[in-house]
Amino acid sequence: MNGAKWIWLKGDFEIYHSLLLHSRREDKGCNYPPMWHLDTPYPNVVFKKVFTAEKAGAFRVFAKGNGYAMMDGKIFPTEKEVPFDAGTHKAEIRILCTDGTFPCIYIDHDLLRTDESWYCAHSTPERFPVGCMEEYTSPEDNPHIFKYRYSPLIPKEITPLNDGVLYDFGKETFCRIAVSSEDPTSDYMLYYGESKEEALDEEHCTIRLPLCGKTEYSLHARAFRYLYLKGNTQGIRLSAEYEYLPLKDRADFQCDNPKIKEIWNMCAYTFHLNSREFFLDGIKRDRWVWSGDAYQSHMANNYLYFDNEITKRTILALLGKPPYEQHINTINDYTMYLIISVMEYYLNTADLDFVRFVWKRISALYRFLAEGTDEKDYICARPGDWIFIDWSPMDKNGPLCAEQILYWQTKNAMAYLAELLKEDGTVYKEEATRLKENIEKDFWCEEKSAFIDSYTSGKKNVTRHANIFAILYDFASKKQTESIRKNVLENENITPITTPYFAFFELLVYGKLGDIPRIQEKIESYWGGILEQGATSVWEQFDPTKQGAEHYEMYGQKYGCSLCHAWGSGPLYLLGRYCVGVYPTDAGYKTFRVEPNPGKYKSFRGTVPLPQGEVKVVYENGSITVTAGADGGTLCWKGKEHPLTKGIPFTV
Amino acid sequence: MNGAKWIWLKGDFEIYHSLLLHSRREDKGCNYPPMWHLDTPYPNVVFKKVFTAEKAGAFRVFAKGNGYAMMDGKIFPTEKEVPFDAGTHKAEIRILCTDGTFPCIYIDHDLLRTDESWYCAHSTPERFPVGCMEEYTSPEDNPHIFKYRYSPLIPKEITPLNDGVLYDFGKETFCRIAVSSEDPTSDYMLYYGESKEEALDEEHCTIRLPLCGKTEYSLHARAFRYLYLKGNTQGIRLSAEYEYLPLKDRADFQCDNPKIKEIWNMCAYTFHLNSREFFLDGIKRDRWVWSGDAYQSHMANNYLYFDNEITKRTILALLGKPPYEQHINTINDYTMYLIISVMEYYLNTADLDFVRFVWKRISALYRFLAEGTDEKDYICARPGDWIFIDWSPMDKNGPLCAEQILYWQTKNAMAYLAELLKEDGTVYKEEATRLKENIEKDFWCEEKSAFIDSYTSGKKNVTRHANIFAILYDFASKKQTESIRKNVLENENITPITTPYFAFFELLVYGKLGDIPRIQEKIESYWGGILEQGATSVWEQFDPTKQGAEHYEMYGQKYGCSLCHAWGSGPLYLLGRYCVGVYPTDAGYKTFRVEPNPGKYKSFRGTVPLPQGEVKVVYENGSITVTAGADGGTLCWKGKEHPLTKGIPFTV
Repeated sequence: MNGAKWIWLKGDFEIYHSLLLHSRREDKGCNYPPMWHLDTPYPNVVFKKVFTAEKAGAFRVFAKGNGYAMMDGKIFPTEKEVPFDAGTHKAEIRILCTDGTFPCIYIDHDLLRTDESWYCAHSTPERFPVGCMEEYTSPEDNPHIFKYRYSPLIPKEITPLNDGVLYDFGKETFCRIAVSSEDPTSDYMLYYGESKEEALDEEHCTIRLPLCGKTEYSLHARAFRYLYLKGNTQGIRLSAEYEYLPLKDRADFQCDNPKIKEIWNMCAYTFHLNSREFFLDGIKRDRWVWSGDAYQSHMANNYLYFDNEITKRTILALLGKPPYEQHINTINDYTMYLIISVMEYYLNTADLDFVRFVWKRISALYRFLAEGTDEKDYICARPGDWIFIDWSPMDKNGPLCAEQILYWQTKNAMAYLAELLKEDGTVYKEEATRLKENIEKDFWCEEKSAFIDSYTSGKKNVTRHANIFAILYDFASKKQTESIRKNVLENENITPITTPYFAFFELLVYGKLGDIPRIQEKIESYWGGILEQGATSVWEQFDPTKQGAEHYEMYGQKYGCSLCHAWGSGPLYLLGRYCVGVYPTDAGYKTFRVEPNPGKYKSFRGTVPLPQGEVKVVYENGSITVTAGADGGTLCWKGKEHPLTKGIPFTV
Repeated sequence: MNGAKWIWLKGDFEIYHSLLLHSRREDKGCNYPPMWHLDTPYPNVVFKKVFTAEKAGAFRVFAKGNGYAMMDGKIFPTEKEVPFDAGTHKAEIRILCTDGTFPCIYIDHDLLRTDESWYCAHSTPERFPVGCMEEYTSPEDNPHIFKYRYSPLIPKEITPLNDGVLYDFGKETFCRIAVSSEDPTSDYMLYYGESKEEALDEEHCTIRLPLCGKTEYSLHARAFRYLYLKGNTQGIRLSAEYEYLPLKDRADFQCDNPKIKEIWNMCAYTFHLNSREFFLDGIKRDRWVWSGDAYQSHMANNYLYFDNEITKRTILALLGKPPYEQHINTINDYTMYLIISVMEYYLNTADLDFVRFVWKRISALYRFLAEGTDEKDYICARPGDWIFIDWSPMDKNGPLCAEQILYWQTKNAMAYLAELLKEDGTVYKEEATRLKENIEKDFWCEEKSAFIDSYTSGKKNVTRHANIFAILYDFASKKQTESIRKNVLENENITPITTPYFAFFELLVYGKLGDIPRIQEKIESYWGGILEQGATSVWEQFDPTKQGAEHYEMYGQKYGCSLCHAWGSGPLYLLGRYCVGVYPTDAGYKTFRVEPNPGKYKSFRGTVPLPQGEVKVVYENGSITVTAGADGGTLCWKGKEHPLTKGIPFTV
C-alpha cells in the first residue's frame, strides 16, 4: 500500500458504518434500532500536510463532502486543479459532511498523495492520525460504502407450494436477493427463514418483506437458509448473491475423529458469516455488535484468520467516542471486556499505534466506569446500568464478585497500556492491589472454599462465574485454584453453566488447567449435537432435550434463537490454543510457545496462524512434528523445551 | 399550541440546522466550511410517555427516521395503526436517523398526541425535554426543513449589457432565484453583488454560479442587491422570491430629525435580513453564527421584535453539545458572551425552563473555559485559542485585562444561574471576588487612572476595551468610572474604537453614563454617513474618508466588507434602551422602568416591546406621555418616579 488512498479521521469510518449496521435490524416488519446511544462521525474535518515539491505541478482533490483545498493560505475548489510551484507547501483540505457521512479525501499526484503521512483534526486543536484501508485506493472508491465481495449462490432445492415457492439454499447464508417479476401489479411477500419452519410461518417469521408494484427488486443482504416467496410466482425469477469478506482461513484442525473436522468446518463457516464490518453476534436477529461477544470473537479470529483489521474495526465501533454516558451496549461488564480486549489485541499484535490512538478514548471510558463505584471501589449498578455477566441466576445483592474480578483485570489492562505508552500506570496498579485485597476479604469464603456472588446478602451463594474469572485472569492463588476446581468446577451441585457464551469462559479455564479431554468431550457432545440436528452453522443455544422446531425458540420468540451465532465458534480457539497449543509469550508473537496436548485424540493435525507465517503441528503414533513459519518458537512436549527454527520441521 | 406537534430531542433542531447553515458559505466557486468544530444531532432517540386512555383506540406515528412504536412492550411499525385498550399505557417510540438529520415524531390522536408532555433520551439514562415549534404542527410538516416565508420581488431596473443582463433589485435582499432558459445548450454565469461593482466584477465577485445544461434552475436563497447574468440571455427569464421569517416589528422610533427614522428603518431592515435560523453576522460573506455578534443581536432583538425563539435557537446552535474542546467560534471571549447571554436572556424573559435545559451544557462549557486559566485564575491562550476582544492593536502580552473582566462577569452569570436553579453558586461567587481583587491589583494603574491591557509587559498600555467592560459590567467603582470617563473615554490620545462591533459596547457605556447626545451624534455621523452613501442596509464597517468602491474592501478582499451586517443594528437597542429609556428591573419585565432621555432631540415618539404589550413614549414640547402595555412600570422623569398603570396614558 504505497500508493494513494482515501483518508479520513481515524475512527470515523467505524463510527459511521456502525451507525448504518445498527440501523438494519428488522423484526416482523419493524425497524428495530438498538436501545443504546450511537455515535456519529465528526462532520467538519481538516486534513493537513506540509510537502516539498521538486518541481511545479497541480493536484486534484477528490472528496466526499463539500469544502476547499487551501494551498499556502489560498483556497481552491475540490475536484479541480490546485497548482503549486517547486518548494515547500502547506496543504490543508477542509471537508464538511451534512448527510451523516464522514469527510474523506483522495489525492494522487507524483509529488503529493493522500496516505498515512497526513494528519487531520475535527477542527479543534487536537491532532488525529488519518484512517485508510486497502479497499479504498482508487478515485472511484467510496469509503461511505463498505466493500464486500459477491458470488452467486444457487438454491439447492426449489419447491412449488400452493401459494408460492420455497427455496432451500442448502446451508445458512447471507445474500442479497434480486427478484424480477413480469407483472408489476402482482404483490409478493418474501419470508426469510434460518429454518424451513420459520420461512413458512407467516405470523412468526422474523424477516419479511412486501414486494409491491415493481418488476425488479434488489434487496440488500440478509441471513437465511430458506426463502419463501408468496404470491403468484408464475414467470418470477429470484437470484441470490453471497455477500462476504475475502478473509482467508489460515488455520485448520483434524483428528482421528472425523466428526471433529466437520465441527471445525461448521465453526469456521459460522465465523465467516459473522465477520463483517465488525464481529456480529449473529447474522439474523439483531446483527449488532456486542462487546462480550466480540471479546470472544477476537480470540477465534487469532486462531482462524489472524486479521487485525476486523479486530480494530470492531474495537473502534464499540468505543465510539466521548463523552461516555453509558456502558458499552449498556452493560458494565461489556465496557470492561472492551478495555481488556485492547490489551489482549496488543499482546497478540504488538500494534502500538492502535493503542496510542485509542488510549484517550479508553481512558475516558475507564473514568466513566470508575465513577460508578462504591467506597470499596466496587462496581455497582447506576441507573441504566446492566450488571450482566450471564443469564444464569446469581445473587446480585450488592456488588457482584464476578464484576469486581473483571474490574481488577481492567485496572491491570489500564496499567499495562499506560506503561506501554510511557504514561504513569502506578495509580491503576495500586488500585488493583487494593481492590484485590478487598475482594479476597469480602468474597472469598473459607467455608465454601470458593468465591461467593455477594458479601452483602449473607447467603454465601456460589456460582461458577466469579470462580471461572478468578482462574481465567490469574486472580486466584494456586491454592484457591485447586479449591475452585474441586469445590466448584467439578462439583455437580453447583449450577452448571447453561449458556454457550459463558461456557466458552469455562472451557478456557479447563484449557488453562490442562483438562483438554473435558474440552474435547464438550465439543463432541454440544457441537456434535448441533451438527446432528442437520445444522450448517452453530446455533446460539442448544438443548439436547428439545425436539424439532423447539430448538428455534428463544427469548420468548418462536424463532428467537439465532442459528448462526459467532460465540458458537469457540472450538476454533480452544483447539488451536489448547490442543495444538500455540500462544504468544511476548507481544506480537516475537516469542511463542507450542505446547501440544492431544488429550483424548489419538492423532491430530493442526495449523495455527502467527502474525507472520503459520505453525503446523502433526501428532501421530505418539510423536509430534512442528513446523513454525516464524522465528521465536519453543516446543514444549512432555515437560521438555525444544527451540524451533523457522521453516524447519522438528520432530520429537 | 394545544394540538399535536412534531417533537424531537431539545437542541437537536438547532444543532442540525446550524450544521446546514454553516455548510452554505461560498467563496469564488469554493464551498467554505468554518474552521471550528461542528456538532451533529443525536441519531438514536427514544420518546416516552405514559398515558391513560378512557377508551380503546389506535394511533399512528409519523416519524422522520426509522424505528418502531412500542406499546406496553410490544413493537409496531411506524406509519401504521398502533392499537390500545382503555387503561394506562406506556408508549415508547424509538427512531434512528443515519442521514445526519435528527429523529422526530408526530402523533395526533384524541387520547395521545405529541407535545411538550413527552420526554426523550438519546438512549442513555439521562432524560431530556422535547423540542417543538409552532411551525411544525401538521403531519405533512418536516422539521428537517427550516420553514421560511416567500414573497416575489421584482427588479427595480433591468439593464441589458454586451454580455448579459444586470438586475438591480433596488435594495439589499435575500432571495431564491429561478432562471428559465429556452436553450439547454447555453451556459450562463450568475454573479451576486451587494454592490453593482461586485456583480460586474467577474474576477472578485464573491458568489458566482455556473448555470449549465438545463432549461430550469432553482437556486437556494443568497444575498444581493444586484444580479449579473452573463451569457446569451435572449428568451431567458429570471425571477426572485424574498426568503424571510415573519418576525413582527413591535418597536418604532422617530424624532424631530427625519433622518433618524430613515436610519432606524435601515437598521430594522438589516436586522430582519440577519434574523434567520439564527442571528447571522451578515447575510452575504460567511453567513455564520458568531457568538460576539449574536450577543449584540440579542439586545437589538429585545428592542425590535422581542422574539424569544430566535434567541433560544441562536444560543442552542452556538452551544452545540459537550464535550467542549474548543472555544465558541474558537474565541475565548465568545465563549464568555455565550454564557453571559444566557443570564441576560433570563433577565429579559424569566424563562427558567430554558435555563434549566442549557445548564448542563453551559456548566461543561464553563469548565472548559476555567481549565484554561493560570495560577491567578486569569484566562490565558491555549493552543488553538483566540484571545480576540477586537481587531484593534492591544498589548496582548500575558493575560489581557478585558478578557479577565469578561471572565469575572461570566462567573457572576454562573453564580446567578446556579442560584436560579437552586444549585450552589457559592464557588462562582467566591472565585469572582478573588478574581476581582487580582484584576484590581494587577491591572488598575493609578498612574494612568485606568485599566491597562497587560500587567506583565511593563508597558502600561491603555486601550478603551477593558475600561469599557469595567463600566459596562459594573466592575469599576464610582471613582474608577469617573477616572475612566475622563482619562480614557474622553481622552483623544487613547486610540479610538474603530470597529462598529466594539463601538456598540462603547455606546452602551455612554448610555449607561447618561451621555445620550454622544450616542445621538454617533448615529447621525456613522449611520447617517452610511445612509448618505446610498446604502439600504447597514455595512459591516464605514470609513468616511474612503471613496466609492473602496468602501466595499475589507479583510484584504475587494468586496470583503459585508453590506448588511447585524451588528450595524445597534441604534435599535440604543434608542429604545437609552432614549425611550425602557428596561426591566426584575426578570421578565415583571417590573420595569421607563426613563426617557431626549438628549438633543426636541421631540420623539418611541415604542419599545415588553414580553406582553408595548411601551409607547411621546416627548413633545417638554412633556412626556407614556402608555405601558403591561403592569409593573415606573416612569422616571426629571428625578421623580411615577407608577404606570397598564393601558392608561400618563403625561408629565
